[in-house]
Amino acid sequence: MRTESGADLFIGTHRETLDRALEAIASRGYWSPYPEMPSPRAYGETAANDGESAFQALLNQPFALNQPGEDGVMIGAERSPFGFDLGVAYPKPERGALLHAAEAALPQWRDAGPLARAAVCLEILARLNAQSFLMAHAVMHTNGQAFMMAFQAGGPHAQDRGLEAVAYAYREQAAIPAEARWEKPQGSKNPPLVVDKTWHLVPRGVAVVIGCATFPTWNGYPGLFASLATGNPVIVKPHPGATLPLALTVKIAREVLADAGFDPNTVLLAVDDPDAPMATDLCLDPRVGVIDFTGSSAFGTWLEDHCRHAQVYAEKAGVNYIVIESTNDFKGLCRNLAFVLSLYAGQMCTTSQNIFIPRDGIQTEDGPKTYDEVCQGLATALDKFLGNTERAVEVLGGICNPATLERIEQARGLGRVVLDSRAVDHPTYPDATVRTPILVALDSTDRAVFEEERFGPIAFLIACDSGAAALDLAAETVAAKGAITGGVYTTNPDLEARAVELALRTGVNLAVNFTAGVYVNQSAAFSDFHATGANPAANAALSDSAFVAGRFRPVCIRRMGG
Amino acid sequence: MRTESGADLFIGTHRETLDRALEAIASRGYWSPYPEMPSPRAYGETAANDGESAFQALLNQPFALNQPGEDGVMIGAERSPFGFDLGVAYPKPERGALLHAAEAALPQWRDAGPLARAAVCLEILARLNAQSFLMAHAVMHTNGQAFMMAFQAGGPHAQDRGLEAVAYAYREQAAIPAEARWEKPQGSKNPPLVVDKTWHLVPRGVAVVIGCATFPTWNGYPGLFASLATGNPVIVKPHPGATLPLALTVKIAREVLADAGFDPNTVLLAVDDPDAPMATDLCLDPRVGVIDFTGSSAFGTWLEDHCRHAQVYAEKAGVNYIVIESTNDFKGLCRNLAFVLSLYAGQMCTTSQNIFIPRDGIQTEDGPKTYDEVCQGLATALDKFLGNTERAVEVLGGICNPATLERIEQARGLGRVVLDSRAVDHPTYPDATVRTPILVALDSTDRAVFEEERFGPIAFLIACDSGAAALDLAAETVAAKGAITGGVYTTNPDLEARAVELALRTGVNLAVNFTAGVYVNQSAAFSDFHATGANPAANAALSDSAFVAGRFRPVCIRRMGG
Repeated sequence: MRTESGADLFIGTHRETLDRALEAIASRGYWSPYPEMPSPRAYGETAANDGESAFQALLNQPFALNQPGEDGVMIGAERSPFGFDLGVAYPKPERGALLHAAEAALPQWRDAGPLARAAVCLEILARLNAQSFLMAHAVMHTNGQAFMMAFQAGGPHAQDRGLEAVAYAYREQAAIPAEARWEKPQGSKNPPLVVDKTWHLVPRGVAVVIGCATFPTWNGYPGLFASLATGNPVIVKPHPGATLPLALTVKIAREVLADAGFDPNTVLLAVDDPDAPMATDLCLDPRVGVIDFTGSSAFGTWLEDHCRHAQVYAEKAGVNYIVIESTNDFKGLCRNLAFVLSLYAGQMCTTSQNIFIPRDGIQTEDGPKTYDEVCQGLATALDKFLGNTERAVEVLGGICNPATLERIEQARGLGRVVLDSRAVDHPTYPDATVRTPILVALDSTDRAVFEEERFGPIAFLIACDSGAAALDLAAETVAAKGAITGGVYTTNPDLEARAVELALRTGVNLAVNFTAGVYVNQSAAFSDFHATGANPAANAALSDSAFVAGRFRPVCIRRMGG
Repeated sequence: MRTESGADLFIGTHRETLDRALEAIASRGYWSPYPEMPSPRAYGETAANDGESAFQALLNQPFALNQPGEDGVMIGAERSPFGFDLGVAYPKPERGALLHAAEAALPQWRDAGPLARAAVCLEILARLNAQSFLMAHAVMHTNGQAFMMAFQAGGPHAQDRGLEAVAYAYREQAAIPAEARWEKPQGSKNPPLVVDKTWHLVPRGVAVVIGCATFPTWNGYPGLFASLATGNPVIVKPHPGATLPLALTVKIAREVLADAGFDPNTVLLAVDDPDAPMATDLCLDPRVGVIDFTGSSAFGTWLEDHCRHAQVYAEKAGVNYIVIESTNDFKGLCRNLAFVLSLYAGQMCTTSQNIFIPRDGIQTEDGPKTYDEVCQGLATALDKFLGNTERAVEVLGGICNPATLERIEQARGLGRVVLDSRAVDHPTYPDATVRTPILVALDSTDRAVFEEERFGPIAFLIACDSGAAALDLAAETVAAKGAITGGVYTTNPDLEARAVELALRTGVNLAVNFTAGVYVNQSAAFSDFHATGANPAANAALSDSAFVAGRFRPVCIRRMGG
């Protein structure tokens, strides 16, 4: 029998939210339990100041975790893209001690059952939500997102993604009854055969979550909560440049676990030392049963190739595309794409990189426009959108990784520069690294250039033989290199149908004629699956049944009944 | 929008059965829509004779399939374990033509949607059920099961497993809405943001099902129907020694597809030529997106290692165990295990191989019994059970594979023979190859001997230091080599609890104190998950959410609404 002990209080508190989340994943309309506006009404009058003070208090201090294997050595060298060192020092972890502690925590967590686990996860999410201002600062000053985006994507939207994973995990586990009586008739003269069965849901093992630098919480929470909700103790290994958001997350998770009567070592932090990275050794350990990863194709593929003892869920690189064939709102198109390319300076796995345009131009509401006019329209829209410095820095944020600056520099030599990237002086943070997007004109023959992901504020305007040829080329790049988002602008129903068919064949989510306030690079939990798992950019979607179903296995104990 | 065209009639006919199956997988009690008794009442007065006549009419004839790429060359060399050649000649397939035809069938089948696909699958199953007598003969004379078992396991029980997979596939697909409107409030002054979304479920690609020699339909149908129901065209590659059951299956599937207005090439047969096996080349083709396999660990692991472009569901070898520590029904225990070891001469992936017994003996309702007395009890029960030749041949069936005879011979040299295997003359089939089980006494130190799967009527009686030591040893062999079934006999609650804990840790389904008419080697669809996917014997369970959820991916088309 599955026991549901230790977390009764949290079950009572969160049952309704869980039920609402279960409804939301079934209907996939708009829903979010965590307010996305950093307002006093939602979070309390003092929340903003409290969050900022709490962040300031963490700087230049040791970060206490009280995990097994700590020996006093501290590491950490995070630097804000807005221009200062965080100075947070984390206990250097001992891999063997973490794995041992996680494994020891497994049986109790396994036996807690799906409902208690879901309730504990929801309490963790609720406490994370209450700390959204602190989290916003932690996210902003590690990945470089401007405050509003750091608050939303790092806080409530990430929490949404966590809850979504919990809902899927709970639904798939609850679909297996805890027990059943199997009673097979043996004709009218004989009693039935009776077997009493109990199903135990067993986790794969110790789960590892490898965080990324740009969206440590948004991309990390689905795997963390999916594994946790399905009974796997989790070791979180953040990116060395974005440790703080996940350290705060783990700290809160450990507090909730202890409060619920579980072993806090059910969630552990493995702070990484860039001088001696631990991800490979950690993931190669046979005790590891699940790995969630967001990052480079090289390491994602390495994990898939070498960690065959574990289920690996990997989001890797991709080349997202837009095909512009015709539109009845060219201005809206340009404004829309200007925002897409500017948001967080293109440092999103959903940002469009390749914009395919017929070399003979497109039809618009104002008549035909040449290829050059389309390019110029996009450049002008970007210039206008980012002309106001105050607004520009709140959209662009900072550049997270110096390698991105190098890629911008390289991009200048890859084709004809239609709009150059420029540095923007941040009014508040003089040492911030802020850059605008670069637009580079290419030809459809420049495949080697645009088939490679060039992460950052870099977009290619690729001249193609026709709209149909543009679609085919986009599909070929997706099949070869993967993509998380695609978009098409067309007023031609046949071309739209072809775009849809190619999206289905290459397994990419497609936005059709986005001209107003919705954007191809945005992905809403409970409604949009993030990625599909059907092309090289990712082997899973966040979150669906497949993302959770493999994290646990049903084991049956059969006893003769009657 | 998902269309549900072409199969409306079948939806009407089978909707109720589908709904019952959906209830059954949720409650997991006893249920089966396909009568397991080969009775005139269930199947009609002439069904038995019709089935036998139909089988006879197939012998020594070409088997018509009308598949693409046929060039007149015929292959096939099936031989009944009951002692005669079948003489059925199948068109030699051309791999490229099959893959091309399957790929061409994909879009229409994908766009049919989950309900139409489920209905087509249920019609295939209904027509298979109507042909259960023919199928029984085809199964019997390829894998060697006695008639009753061939009828049940090859017919209705296999159909149950197929329907179970369809139910899971339908449930997971139906959980994703075909469309939704996402409407995000923008405050009281502004209209909401509106996005209209349609989700298309896209299959992984072409699916391949690799059949096994012993349970071609029972082990083949879950993968076949899971892939088909999730939109993947399927190429079925039977074992060369057990082609006929799957050839009949594919023929019926193609007829149903055509009747429903679909491309019959949505299901194809790839008859294999033992002189030029095609499984490796077929599975290596990048168009293949899903592979289901039952068979050797060597080939299963090869598929997992080399076919990384596909989802591989593999059931491989394992060493199933029984631990006997104490019992209050020693006679029942011996009778029960005698049946387990005898049924189909141990040629089941669920048959127990390793029977661990304390060397100091066990407690029974008649007081203590020594290790030797336990061994003798089992040997006597087997002798008694198989003493009646008429009954013996109806339980043992024939030996499917000559390699099994070699393994029996080898087993004689592996330890002390407690009960030797003997040949049984079949009263009806003088050339049948019938063998009784061999029991070999070993010591717990003979690990190299019992840690290897020795498929067939071979069981080891392994002397251990204690009941607890027996459990530990069993668990170690499962962790190292895998197992699909485990069993324990004990009256000690602490030992039982330990057995359960070890079963959870090693991910093996456990039968506790089975002494009456239920058996560790039996697995009932809709109630028992077959295997767990949590130890080396299999990477999936038949069938659960994880078995179907990865076979399709949701792709979203987003359009601005409002």
